[in-house]
Amino acid sequence: MGVSAKDILSGDIQAAARLMRDLDDEIPSAHRTLKTLYRHTGRAYLLGITGAPGSGKSTLVDCLTGHLRQEGKTVGIVAIDPTSPFSGGAILGDRIRMQKHTLDDGVFIRSLATRGHLGGLSKSTLDIVNVMDAMGKDVVIIETVGVGQDEVEIVKVVHTNLVLVVPGLGDDIQALKAGILEIADIFVVNKYDREGADRTKQELETMVSMNTYGEGEWVPPVMATVAQTGTGVHELLAEVARHWKFVSREENLKRYRTEKAKVELMEILKKKLIEKAVDDLSRSGVLDLLLRDIARKHLDPYSVADKVVDHKFAFHLRKESGKGKANRKNRP
Amino acid sequence: MGVSAKDILSGDIQAAARLMRDLDDEIPSAHRTLKTLYRHTGRAYLLGITGAPGSGKSTLVDCLTGHLRQEGKTVGIVAIDPTSPFSGGAILGDRIRMQKHTLDDGVFIRSLATRGHLGGLSKSTLDIVNVMDAMGKDVVIIETVGVGQDEVEIVKVVHTNLVLVVPGLGDDIQALKAGILEIADIFVVNKYDREGADRTKQELETMVSMNTYGEGEWVPPVMATVAQTGTGVHELLAEVARHWKFVSREENLKRYRTEKAKVELMEILKKKLIEKAVDDLSRSGVLDLLLRDIARKHLDPYSVADKVVDHKFAFHLRKESGKGKANRKNRP
Repeated sequence: MGVSAKDILSGDIQAAARLMRDLDDEIPSAHRTLKTLYRHTGRAYLLGITGAPGSGKSTLVDCLTGHLRQEGKTVGIVAIDPTSPFSGGAILGDRIRMQKHTLDDGVFIRSLATRGHLGGLSKSTLDIVNVMDAMGKDVVIIETVGVGQDEVEIVKVVHTNLVLVVPGLGDDIQALKAGILEIADIFVVNKYDREGADRTKQELETMVSMNTYGEGEWVPPVMATVAQTGTGVHELLAEVARHWKFVSREENLKRYRTEKAKVELMEILKKKLIEKAVDDLSRSGVLDLLLRDIARKHLDPYSVADKVVDHKFAFHLRKESGKGKANRKNRP
Repeated sequence: MGVSAKDILSGDIQAAARLMRDLDDEIPSAHRTLKTLYRHTGRAYLLGITGAPGSGKSTLVDCLTGHLRQEGKTVGIVAIDPTSPFSGGAILGDRIRMQKHTLDDGVFIRSLATRGHLGGLSKSTLDIVNVMDAMGKDVVIIETVGVGQDEVEIVKVVHTNLVLVVPGLGDDIQALKAGILEIADIFVVNKYDREGADRTKQELETMVSMNTYGEGEWVPPVMATVAQTGTGVHELLAEVARHWKFVSREENLKRYRTEKAKVELMEILKKKLIEKAVDDLSRSGVLDLLLRDIARKHLDPYSVADKVVDHKFAFHLRKESGKGKANRKNRP
């Protein structure tokens, strides 16, 4: 028996954890439950926190979670940074600090590194966010390193994304320039007590000011925090609330929801299309032949992919066998 | 006029740089050239270097490149770490140090962060590696952060992958355990002059010793380096050479080539399948309708993806229009 949608909707933590495991294991009933749950999603506020390992993301998540809990809000945390204490990484002190939340029923933490994959961390991030949303979590915080296309896609589905920058990395800001503006709703210069913090803040402000924003467009503010001591977190939360209000405007919400639908559909579609193609090719025994020929450089993978996409393989094989090559299939 | 395969095969750096730009811009003639070039690939030795930002990857790449150049070997470098000096990131000192290689004709450096995308860094990594291979580079070094599925896929196509670990991150090793063994041919504890280096080395060795290896399987050695001063790099190169010899054995090479063919085909196929699906859906105007209905929670993206994969949309729309909904397409 799989996990029922009803159990998830009632907020059952055990059931949610099991459903997430089942989704990882690709159990069909779990996918059916997810389909049913989908129409109950869209109520949670999704907050992204992006920053390099060591930028203090988890300390900030810890801080924000504390504040949200005080306001009586329930929180879901999805960590896809392998060095995050939420994922089992980081130093012992961090982990002990997090314990207070792991023991709090109002906080549901799910790490995407626990399954032992270095890659594929974001494989089912959207699914997990949707389960937490359907569970009734008021806020779902998604912690990402911000590297790789997958993570950038995930950032597109959050209502508000905080980008953490550590002081003294001026050149990095240059390097990330174009990409970073694309994904930041609010910049946070964390560890603001460090040397060079002012300069970093100024550089970010200059970067923002040099960008062109249309009327009614959001201009990302640059905030300063020391998450370790809580300095600046109150002000940061005020900006988050301001952005929340901005996103909640009818016209923005409509655009956001369509964008989210697009990212979700594309992510799921990508996965299913390649699965189907591999299934089809494997079942007919074509895949092994193709790989052998590519490995031998008799074929190139670009042309093969073109043919697969255009469903030309039945024809291709027929033609070859017509030339007396029917027997080339030499698998056991 | 596009770049000809002949220009690339002659090792023309200008032509190669232009072809890579054209590939990024998705210019059709560039893809045709790539198809032609494919059969000339497979001669370069592909060396991966994976490690978190700050683990000293680029200093090590610098060191190794110097050694390889002294041996008269030409080198290609592909950097997909946005904080790497090869990608324009990192501190000024690093960048100046790299200059000696950028001025060397025998070294071709291509950064995948220069196009300003925070994500999508690895979009065409394999294409770029193939171009460098076809150019006749003896060794192509691929620098990755090792986060995300894309990067793990790329690591699968290298002959030898070095995984850099920084001392004092004991807990991180625990977190990465399963994934890290999967992708490491050689472990390198870099910054070995730091406190806790011995312990980190021991932990890695214990981890390796607890893993089960079959007969004739490679057991990853754990090396210690201080790339900054060059300490241990000679010994590391000896291990790289030993692994190179191991990979070059007939049975291993065959397996490697098939695996590489598979990763290449899958990466290209994934991209083309989703492009085709989006094209088809967009052209018929179905995509906008679907996204609207998903955004409104009238449909769930999981069921929609199933239908797209099974090509059920022509039928679906016909049925709907039969019910008098032919006019529901309300796009401009």
